[in-house]
Amino acid sequence: MHPKLFFCECKTDEQLIKIFKTCIESGQNVLGTRASIMQYQALKVIFKDIQYNETAKILTFLQNDIEQVGEIALCTGGTGDIPVAEEAALTAEFYGSKVKRYYDVGIAGIHRLLDKIDDIKQANVIIAAAGMEGALAGIIAGLVDKPVIALPTSVGYGASFQGLSALLTMLNSCAEGITVVNIDNGYNAGYSAARINAMITSVTANRPRANGCYA
Amino acid sequence: MHPKLFFCECKTDEQLIKIFKTCIESGQNVLGTRASIMQYQALKVIFKDIQYNETAKILTFLQNDIEQVGEIALCTGGTGDIPVAEEAALTAEFYGSKVKRYYDVGIAGIHRLLDKIDDIKQANVIIAAAGMEGALAGIIAGLVDKPVIALPTSVGYGASFQGLSALLTMLNSCAEGITVVNIDNGYNAGYSAARINAMITSVTANRPRANGCYA
Amino acid sequence: MHPKLFFCECKTDEQLIKIFKTCIESGQNVLGTRASIMQYQALKVIFKDIQYNETAKILTFLQNDIEQVGEIALCTGGTGDIPVAEEAALTAEFYGSKVKRYYDVGIAGIHRLLDKIDDIKQANVIIAAAGMEGALAGIIAGLVDKPVIALPTSVGYGASFQGLSALLTMLNSCAEGITVVNIDNGYNAGYSAARINAMITSVTANRPRANGCYA
Amino acid sequence: MHPKLFFCECKTDEQLIKIFKTCIESGQNVLGTRASIMQYQALKVIFKDIQYNETAKILTFLQNDIEQVGEIALCTGGTGDIPVAEEAALTAEFYGSKVKRYYDVGIAGIHRLLDKIDDIKQANVIIAAAGMEGALAGIIAGLVDKPVIALPTSVGYGASFQGLSALLTMLNSCAEGITVVNIDNGYNAGYSAARINAMITSVTANRPRANGCYA
Amino acid sequence: MHPKLFFCECKTDEQLIKIFKTCIESGQNVLGTRASIMQYQALKVIFKDIQYNETAKILTFLQNDIEQVGEIALCTGGTGDIPVAEEAALTAEFYGSKVKRYYDVGIAGIHRLLDKIDDIKQANVIIAAAGMEGALAGIIAGLVDKPVIALPTSVGYGASFQGLSALLTMLNSCAEGITVVNIDNGYNAGYSAARINAMITSVTANRPRANGCYA
Amino acid sequence: MHPKLFFCECKTDEQLIKIFKTCIESGQNVLGTRASIMQYQALKVIFKDIQYNETAKILTFLQNDIEQVGEIALCTGGTGDIPVAEEAALTAEFYGSKVKRYYDVGIAGIHRLLDKIDDIKQANVIIAAAGMEGALAGIIAGLVDKPVIALPTSVGYGASFQGLSALLTMLNSCAEGITVVNIDNGYNAGYSAARINAMITSVTANRPRANGCYA
Amino acid sequence: MHPKLFFCECKTDEQLIKIFKTCIESGQNVLGTRASIMQYQALKVIFKDIQYNETAKILTFLQNDIEQVGEIALCTGGTGDIPVAEEAALTAEFYGSKVKRYYDVGIAGIHRLLDKIDDIKQANVIIAAAGMEGALAGIIAGLVDKPVIALPTSVGYGASFQGLSALLTMLNSCAEGITVVNIDNGYNAGYSAARINAMITSVTANRPRANGCYA
Amino acid sequence: MHPKLFFCECKTDEQLIKIFKTCIESGQNVLGTRASIMQYQALKVIFKDIQYNETAKILTFLQNDIEQVGEIALCTGGTGDIPVAEEAALTAEFYGSKVKRYYDVGIAGIHRLLDKIDDIKQANVIIAAAGMEGALAGIIAGLVDKPVIALPTSVGYGASFQGLSALLTMLNSCAEGITVVNIDNGYNAGYSAARINAMITSVTANRPRANGCYA
Repeated sequence: MHPKLFFCECKTDEQLIKIFKTCIESGQNVLGTRASIMQYQALKVIFKDIQYNETAKILTFLQNDIEQVGEIALCTGGTGDIPVAEEAALTAEFYGSKVKRYYDVGIAGIHRLLDKIDDIKQANVIIAAAGMEGALAGIIAGLVDKPVIALPTSVGYGASFQGLSALLTMLNSCAEGITVVNIDNGYNAGYSAARINAMITSVTANRPRANGCYA
Repeated sequence: MHPKLFFCECKTDEQLIKIFKTCIESGQNVLGTRASIMQYQALKVIFKDIQYNETAKILTFLQNDIEQVGEIALCTGGTGDIPVAEEAALTAEFYGSKVKRYYDVGIAGIHRLLDKIDDIKQANVIIAAAGMEGALAGIIAGLVDKPVIALPTSVGYGASFQGLSALLTMLNSCAEGITVVNIDNGYNAGYSAARINAMITSVTANRPRANGCYA
Repeated sequence: MHPKLFFCECKTDEQLIKIFKTCIESGQNVLGTRASIMQYQALKVIFKDIQYNETAKILTFLQNDIEQVGEIALCTGGTGDIPVAEEAALTAEFYGSKVKRYYDVGIAGIHRLLDKIDDIKQANVIIAAAGMEGALAGIIAGLVDKPVIALPTSVGYGASFQGLSALLTMLNSCAEGITVVNIDNGYNAGYSAARINAMITSVTANRPRANGCYA
Repeated sequence: MHPKLFFCECKTDEQLIKIFKTCIESGQNVLGTRASIMQYQALKVIFKDIQYNETAKILTFLQNDIEQVGEIALCTGGTGDIPVAEEAALTAEFYGSKVKRYYDVGIAGIHRLLDKIDDIKQANVIIAAAGMEGALAGIIAGLVDKPVIALPTSVGYGASFQGLSALLTMLNSCAEGITVVNIDNGYNAGYSAARINAMITSVTANRPRANGCYA
Repeated sequence: MHPKLFFCECKTDEQLIKIFKTCIESGQNVLGTRASIMQYQALKVIFKDIQYNETAKILTFLQNDIEQVGEIALCTGGTGDIPVAEEAALTAEFYGSKVKRYYDVGIAGIHRLLDKIDDIKQANVIIAAAGMEGALAGIIAGLVDKPVIALPTSVGYGASFQGLSALLTMLNSCAEGITVVNIDNGYNAGYSAARINAMITSVTANRPRANGCYA
Repeated sequence: MHPKLFFCECKTDEQLIKIFKTCIESGQNVLGTRASIMQYQALKVIFKDIQYNETAKILTFLQNDIEQVGEIALCTGGTGDIPVAEEAALTAEFYGSKVKRYYDVGIAGIHRLLDKIDDIKQANVIIAAAGMEGALAGIIAGLVDKPVIALPTSVGYGASFQGLSALLTMLNSCAEGITVVNIDNGYNAGYSAARINAMITSVTANRPRANGCYA
Repeated sequence: MHPKLFFCECKTDEQLIKIFKTCIESGQNVLGTRASIMQYQALKVIFKDIQYNETAKILTFLQNDIEQVGEIALCTGGTGDIPVAEEAALTAEFYGSKVKRYYDVGIAGIHRLLDKIDDIKQANVIIAAAGMEGALAGIIAGLVDKPVIALPTSVGYGASFQGLSALLTMLNSCAEGITVVNIDNGYNAGYSAARINAMITSVTANRPRANGCYA
Repeated sequence: MHPKLFFCECKTDEQLIKIFKTCIESGQNVLGTRASIMQYQALKVIFKDIQYNETAKILTFLQNDIEQVGEIALCTGGTGDIPVAEEAALTAEFYGSKVKRYYDVGIAGIHRLLDKIDDIKQANVIIAAAGMEGALAGIIAGLVDKPVIALPTSVGYGASFQGLSALLTMLNSCAEGITVVNIDNGYNAGYSAARINAMITSVTANRPRANGCYA
C-alpha cells in the first residue's frame, strides 16, 4: 500500500477524521504534518493507535512495516532548528529512509562540524537545517560530494526577517550541489531527501510518490 | 583526472589564461561558465582547442573522454529560458550525465507537457526551468516521482522582478519533491542534477565533487 | 431596489446597526462582509431574519428575491482556500449569478482539474482561488477561453509571504486572459465576476453597480 | 482562421521569421508584441506587407478582415502611459473589438475625466492605464458599472519603484469591480478586455482563445 | 506657557506620572498620544482633571485656555481611518488650530467629495487621511490650491501591506502640493498642519515649537 | 496670467513644441522640468528666449516679471544633492518665492549646520534635501519651529537602495513638523514650499495653483 | 575560567537547567540573554543565587569577580530603546568593561547630545542605540574619533518596519567609523564593544572569546 | 597634518581640482575614493605626483610619510571581491595601519581558510569581505577573538540582490563580535578597522579622525 500524507494546519477535526478513516480503511500508512496537540487529542478518541510527536507536530498511523534503508544525514545549526529538522526526519523515516541526526553543528563553532564530517560524508543525501545566517548548508556542501538539501528555518530576529536571510544565504551559496526548500518546510526536505535516497538504494517499496494532495 | 570548473564573469583575461594553463597542464577537463565572447577570443589565441557555446556562454577544454550515463530530463517553459537551460545541460553533460531536452513545454499549453510526460518520467532527475510565473516545476512534480530541481529564470517583466516571482512560486509549490536553485543559476542546477544522477547510476568516474573554487 | 453591500471589519456594533436599519427601511437586500460572529450576534438581537455564513464571514438580510442567472465557475487549489472562495461565491450569488464550485482541483494533482475542465468551460466567467504557489489560475487560463479572475489567498507559510507569492504568480502568468484581485479579496472577485456574468447574460436586475461606500 | 499572437522580445530574427512563415502559410492573422524596430526591418525584407506600430512596438500581418464590434473604453492618466495603452488598443482591435481612446484624463485634473465619464460609461469594458500613483482605475470604477481592467505602467520615478506603486494602488482600490494585470502588460489588458467584450456582444469570430504559446 | 507633548506607548506608569507631574507643576498644557486606557486609569487616580479620548488614544491635561484660530480641513476616506484622523485633529486643536472634519469622502464615491470641495477649499491647510489605495490626497490636491498633508493609514488587507500601499500612492501623486507623513502618524500630521496654519494666521501663542522630546 | 508647468521626461520634441506654443501665445510664464539638453536645443531653434539650467534640468520661458517674496531656506547634505535641490529652488523661485541656499550642511559635520541655524530659522519654510542616511531633515526640524519639507535624494550606494533609505529616515523622524515628498522630487518640494510661503506672506499673484497637468 | 554565554529564547526549562548545571560545576560565570521571567523562576528554584534583570531580560550567575576596566559610552535616542541598550550594557559589563550610560540623547533635541559629547569622547568605544529614524549613530560619529557601534532598535511604527528604517540609516551613514549590528541585537553590540575595549586596555582576563555556542 | 579624504563619484573635475588644491596647499595627505580613470587623468595634468590605483579606484597624493603600525587582516571570499577589498586596504594603509591580505579564502573550500587562520588570528582587527552568500565573516568570527568587520559586496547574481543577501547573512551571524558596514563600502571598513587598530597600538599620528566631509 502506498503511504499517504497530508497537511493538517487548515483542516477541521471533521475533515481530519474523514481523511484518516478513508486511509485506514484502505490499509495505508498515514502521516499528518503541522498537527496541533488539540487535533491529536480529537483523533485519539477515535483512532486509538495514532501516534503524535509534539516537537515535530506530526501524526502517524502505521498499518504496515516500514523498512528503512540507505542513509540521510540531518544536520542543524542550533537548538531552535530542531522542530523543523524533526519534521524532516520523521517524514524521511516514514518514506523508508534511515536518518542520522547531527544536531547543533552550526558554524559558530566550525570544529564541531569538522569533527563529524567524515561520518556525514557516508550518507547518500544530506539535509542542512539552519536559521539566522543559514551558512551551514554552504559549509557542508564545500566539504562533501553528496546532494545537499538546504532547509532554512525562521529561527532568528531582527533582520533575519522570519527566515528570509537564511533562505537567501542558501540560494546564493557559492558551494556547489545545494538545492533549497521553502522556509520551515521540513516536510518537503525530508520527502525530497527520501526520494533521492530511495533511488540510490534502488528500493522502491516506500519510495515517495506524488500524492497530488498535499494542500 | 577530476574535472575542473570555474566562473568567468569577474575575471580578467590574464586570470583566465593562468587558470586554464594550470588545469590543462594537469591533464584535467575544464569548464568555464558565464564567459563572454571576448574572453573566448582571448583564450582561443593561446588554447586552440577550446570550445565555446554562445547560447550557454560556456567554455570547454576537454582532454579526457566523458562517458555520459543515466538520464536527466531538462524542461523549459519558453524560448527565453533556453540560455539558462543550456548552461545547465552543458554542465551536466560535462559531469558525465546524459541530458534529454524538452524545450517549450510551459503551462500555457499544458497538453504539450502532458504529451511528453511519459518520456520525462524515464529520467533519473528532472530540471524544470521557467521564468515569469514559474509554475512548470510544480506541475511536473505533481506528475512524476523523481527528484525535480526547479530553476527559476529572470525572463519576464513588470512584477516578475527579475525572477523573484518564479523563485517564490517554486519555493511555495505544494507539489512534493521539488528543490530550488538560485535565479538563472543553470550551472548549479546542472551540477546538482548530475551529482544525483551519478549516484543513482553508481558511476563515479566523473561524479561532481566539491571544487572549493567556484567564485 | 438596488442591493447594498458593506465591509464590517472596522465598524462598531452601533455603526452596523445604523447601516442595517437604513438599508432595511429602504427595502434593500443587504450584504455585510468580514463580519465576526460577535457582530452577527449583536445584530441578530435586533434583526431576527439576518443570516450568517461562518466560513465566509458574511451577513445577509434579504427582502427581495434574487434570481440567479448565467454561470460562474469557482475553482480552488486546496481546502485552505475555501473561506475566501465562499466569500466570492456568496457575493456573486447575492448579485444574481449562479455559482458552480470546483473545490480542491489544485495543480499538485493536475488530473483532478483536467477531469472537470469541460464542465468549467461552460461557465461565462471563472474565478481561480489559490494560495502557496498560486499556479491554478494560469493552468485554467491555458485551457479555457473565458475571462479568468485570479484570486490569490494568504494560505501558505515561509516564503509565501502571506499571499504575495501567489499574487506575483498570477500577475506574471504567461497564459492570457487572466486579471487579478487583491490577496484574500473574495468579495471583489465575486463582485467583478458577477458584473461580467450579468452583462453577458443581459440581465440587469441585480447587476453590481457602484455603491461608492465599500470602506 | 484563428488569429495568432506571440511575444518578440527574446526571439532571434531567425525564430521570428520561422514563426511568421508558419502562420502566414496557414492563412492566419499574426500579431507580434514587444518588437524592436530592428526586428521589424529584418522581417520587412521577407514579408512586404507586414505593418509596424512604433509607439506600441507591435507587428501585424493581416490576411483576413477583422470586424470590430462592441466597445472598449481605454483611458490613460498621462502622456507617458500611451505606449502601453496603445499595446492594449492594438491587441483588442486585432481581436475584433472597437476601442475608444480617452488619453490624458488623469486624476490631477479630475474634471477632464468627469467631462467624459458619460461617454466612457457606454463601453462594455473599460481599461484604465496609469503609472505614478495609479489612482485612475479606482476613480473610474467608482463612477461606472462596467468591468474595469486596471493596467499599471512603469511611468514615474523615486518611490514609484517601476510601477509597483501603481500596481499596489490598483490592487487595493476600495472601489468595486476592478481587476488588475501585470505592470506594463498592455497586451494582456487588451486581450482580456477583448474576450469580455466579445462575450457580451456574442460575436465569436475573433474571440480571443487560448494560444498556449505566449512565451 | 509653551504646551508639552509626549508619546505614551513605550512608557511605564511611573514614567508617565513623573512627566505629568513636572509639566503640571510648570503650568503647561499637556498632551499624551498613543495612550492606552490602562495608562489613563493609572493617571486618573492622581490627576483628577485629566481627559482621555478613547478613539484617538489621547490624554490631555489643560491648565491654560487654547484659542483656536484659522482652519484646517481634515478629510478621511473611510470609517476605519477615523482613529488616526482624530489623533491629528486633537493634536491640531491642542496647538491652537480650528479643525473642520470631513469624514468618509473617499474616492469610491467621488461625488461625496465634490459636494464638499468648496467648503474644503476655505481652509488654510488640508489633511487627507486614507488607507487601502490612499488616492484621496491626490484627488484633493488636484482640486484645491492649499497645502495638502497626506496621512496614510494602515487600514486595508492583503497587498495593502499595513499602509505601505497608501504611503506609496501619496508619495507618487502627480498632483502638486502634497507632502506626506509616516503611516498612522496622526500626531505629526496634526502638528505640521497646525504649524503652517499658525504661521498663516500670524498667531504665535500656541504655535507648535520643537519640544525635543517626542520619543 | 497664471504660470504653467510641465514634466518633459516622456515627451517628444513635437509634444513639447506644441505645449510651449500654446502657453506662450496665452502670455504665460512656462517651466519645464526634467528636460534633457537635447530637448532644450530642439526648442531653442523655435523659441529664442528660452532658458535652460543644466544642473536642475529645467527650461523656463518668462513673459511676465516674477516678484519673489518671503523666504524659503534650502539645505542640502552633500554635493551630490545639488541637482535635485536646484530643481526645487528654481521651481520655488518661478512661483514667486525667495530662496536662500545652504548647501553642504550635512550631519557628518554638525557644526557647519549649527553655525547657520540662526539664519535658517528666519525662513518661512525649510526644504532639507539629503541622500544616503537622510538624517538632515530630522536634525533641522529639532532646531527650528517652521514647516520642514524633507526631500530624499537617490544619492548613495549599496543599502541606500536608490533613495529608499533616506525616504524611510525622513518618514520616521521623531522630530516634529516634517513632511516628506517623493525621492528626487525637487519639483514638488519647491512647489509645496512656495505654496506655503505664498500663503504666509499673503501674496497671491504667483501662488502655486493646481495645474491639473503635471504628468 | 572563561565566562559562558547563551541565548535562552528557544530553550526549554530542562535545556536551560542542564546548561547552567554544567557551567556552574565548571566554575564559570554564566550569562543568559532573552530570558523570560518564567524561565528565571524555573531556574531560581534550583540555583538560588541566580540574578535576573527584567528590563534587559538577562540572567546572570557569577562565581568569579569581574574587574571592569576601560570605558564604553552607551547612548540611546529615546526611552523605548532602553531594554535593548541594557542588554548591551549588561553584556559588556559581564565581559569586563565599564559602561557609562547616556540615555535619551536623541537628535530631536540635539543640544542634549552636544552637552554631553565631551564626556562621551572619553570612552574607548561608543554604542549608539536608536529606533525610528536611527540618526543618532551618524551624528555621534561625526563628532568623535572613537569606534562607534550602531545598534538599531525595533522601536517605531508605520514605515519604521520593525527597525529596518533605523538599520538602513545606520548602514548608509556618511559619517565615518560606524559599524552596525542586527536590529535589537544588544548582546552583540555589547560583546563587540567589550572585545575592542579589552584590546585597547590590554586586559585579557575577561576578554570576549568565541564561544562557538550562541545559538 | 591630519590627512584628508573625500568621495569623488558625484564631483566634477572642477570641484575635485579645487579640493585637491586646498588640501595640497595646507600640506595634507589626500585620499580620493570612487575616482574614475577620467577623473585621474584630469587631475594628473595639474598635480603630477598624484597616484591612482585602478582596481580600488583610489587617488592618493602624499606629502607626509605614513608610518604603518599594528596589523589588520583582510580576507575575501572570491576574486570578485578584490576591488572592494582593495578600497578597504588602501584606506587603512593611508590611515597608518599595516594590512595583510588573505584573498580567496571563501567558505566553498573551508580548508584554505583553516590553513591560514593562525596567521589571521595575529591581527588586531579583521575585515571579512564577501558577496553571494557572505558567510565568510561568520566563519572567521567563530574562530578568532578579535574584532571582525564584515564587508558585504555586490558580487553575485539572481537572489543575491546586489549584495543584500550577503548583508543579511552578516547581520544575522550567530558568531559573536561581528559588526557590519554598507554593501561595497570598502572605504568605511578600512577606516573603521584603522581607527580600532590605531587605538590598540596607541599610535595617534594618523589615527582616523572625523572629517565631517565625506559626502
